[in-house]
Amino acid sequence: MVRAAERIRPFARRTPVLTAASLDALFGVRFFFKCENFQRVGAFKFRGASNAVWSLPEPEAARGVATHSSGNHGAALALAARLRGVPCTVVVPRNAPAVKRAAVAGYGAEVVPCEPTLEAREATLARVIGGSGQTVVHPYDDARVIAGQGTAALELVVEVPDLDVVLAPIGGGGLVAGTALAVREASPGARVVAVEPLGADDAYRSFRSGERLPSVAPNTIADGLLTSLGVRNFELVRRYVDDIVRVSEEAIVQAMRLVWERMKIVIEPSAAVPLAALVDGALETSDATAPPMAGKRIGILLSGGNVDLDALPW
Amino acid sequence: MVRAAERIRPFARRTPVLTAASLDALFGVRFFFKCENFQRVGAFKFRGASNAVWSLPEPEAARGVATHSSGNHGAALALAARLRGVPCTVVVPRNAPAVKRAAVAGYGAEVVPCEPTLEAREATLARVIGGSGQTVVHPYDDARVIAGQGTAALELVVEVPDLDVVLAPIGGGGLVAGTALAVREASPGARVVAVEPLGADDAYRSFRSGERLPSVAPNTIADGLLTSLGVRNFELVRRYVDDIVRVSEEAIVQAMRLVWERMKIVIEPSAAVPLAALVDGALETSDATAPPMAGKRIGILLSGGNVDLDALPW
Repeated sequence: MVRAAERIRPFARRTPVLTAASLDALFGVRFFFKCENFQRVGAFKFRGASNAVWSLPEPEAARGVATHSSGNHGAALALAARLRGVPCTVVVPRNAPAVKRAAVAGYGAEVVPCEPTLEAREATLARVIGGSGQTVVHPYDDARVIAGQGTAALELVVEVPDLDVVLAPIGGGGLVAGTALAVREASPGARVVAVEPLGADDAYRSFRSGERLPSVAPNTIADGLLTSLGVRNFELVRRYVDDIVRVSEEAIVQAMRLVWERMKIVIEPSAAVPLAALVDGALETSDATAPPMAGKRIGILLSGGNVDLDALPW
Repeated sequence: MVRAAERIRPFARRTPVLTAASLDALFGVRFFFKCENFQRVGAFKFRGASNAVWSLPEPEAARGVATHSSGNHGAALALAARLRGVPCTVVVPRNAPAVKRAAVAGYGAEVVPCEPTLEAREATLARVIGGSGQTVVHPYDDARVIAGQGTAALELVVEVPDLDVVLAPIGGGGLVAGTALAVREASPGARVVAVEPLGADDAYRSFRSGERLPSVAPNTIADGLLTSLGVRNFELVRRYVDDIVRVSEEAIVQAMRLVWERMKIVIEPSAAVPLAALVDGALETSDATAPPMAGKRIGILLSGGNVDLDALPW
């Protein structure tokens, strides 16, 4: 984790940790928000992509990197590749927003459109790579990506060493796995709790059952959290995460709006999911053994700020 | 100005100065944004109100302060008074948004409703003060308020000493007069340019004619800039401001959206007015003798972030 942090330091922003007195008063706790909405490409994804790209030995890197993505990971990998000066190919489903496709192309990556199914994405990726020797960088089920994502929480707990709990949103599990590793290493006294939308709760069900269960017809406004938990991510979550709690769509929208209004910063719905656990009271009701939150020092990973300003949820 | 800065230091936030590489690339300049949207009550107004309240000798302060306001100044004065522990009365026109009235009351001030005309506001204020000895704190035509507002620019030029130009939005002229004083004092090499909506251009017309002209039926999305330039403000603007330029409504909306999308921060329309001058090219077309902007280091006062999220202009 420390090596990942050193590797990406010249490229990733050290994002600020913001406090918010009015939110503290509202919930009776002390919040510390790690603002990855201010990260390059507008999301923590740039950390994992950078760490993956800069982990490659020179000859391997020179052959380039590739991925399939409809969202922030594609843009993050494209920018990381450009900064290292190596080729990048991103397979993008045809139903991805034009603005996302344009962002990937804007960072100089080759964009290859495909049908919007996981099978088509993987088949297209395999075809375009062919014998080129390009390295595939998975958006979350990848040790280098997980270590890179963890650097956000590492910076947070180094800056605020005495947190009681760290909250992060969970989708594929790249951010949460990295966060759990970082917190165990650098702030072992803090609990790590992942927060998931009720409408996409495969991680919650997997965590409870002890068996990795796929996401079935996920549906949530938190569009960054629709993916299923990865294999490596599930192993790390089982081992290092203290709890997973679920939140309603209403709480996500309310939390998102609270952050915009009180903190005057733009976050995307996925980034509002951890605060939604306070709105919903999910941290105290899900687990009778969980300590009460009143007066606690709570770190929150604000995962990103890429939101369509023409389609706000209020 | 330095005394004002020392006076309000325990109460006002030292807001961050943010840069934005993608906006720099878009306009071919270097921007330094002073983020008063992160100030207490969400706007620079808290600086002037605090300086006014803490400038009062103890017996005078104990009798309390009062103002009329439909916007941020009322909330700012209410909070400043609460922090000093003195009474505060704010006359609020009946057509002011309920949320603004609630904010003033939330800070513990007495809210007195009145009809929405300047005459009614002033008459109501005179009546409620009566013989109470409360000090009226004008929102902008007041030397203590002007000095307080100037502390934002003072912090900016101390942190970024080699700016070529400082841009601020102009309405009543409290922010611009304070900014001009601060820049002349602490960074005399920098130009000070005020930016005004075309639909509320009394300051522009006054500056050009040399005579203070009232605002006639002002109409702009920048609701903080509807007021007419004050007497003290006009004198300071004439003496210390290098130029006033005007911008279109379209440019204001485009600038506001650019800041939200690229910087991931929430600003109100009035705060987008200075950047709109870059969108419109107004800085270079208004005055043939004005130096070209390319490559320049430009400080921008982002005046506030209080915006109705249910009525966004796009």
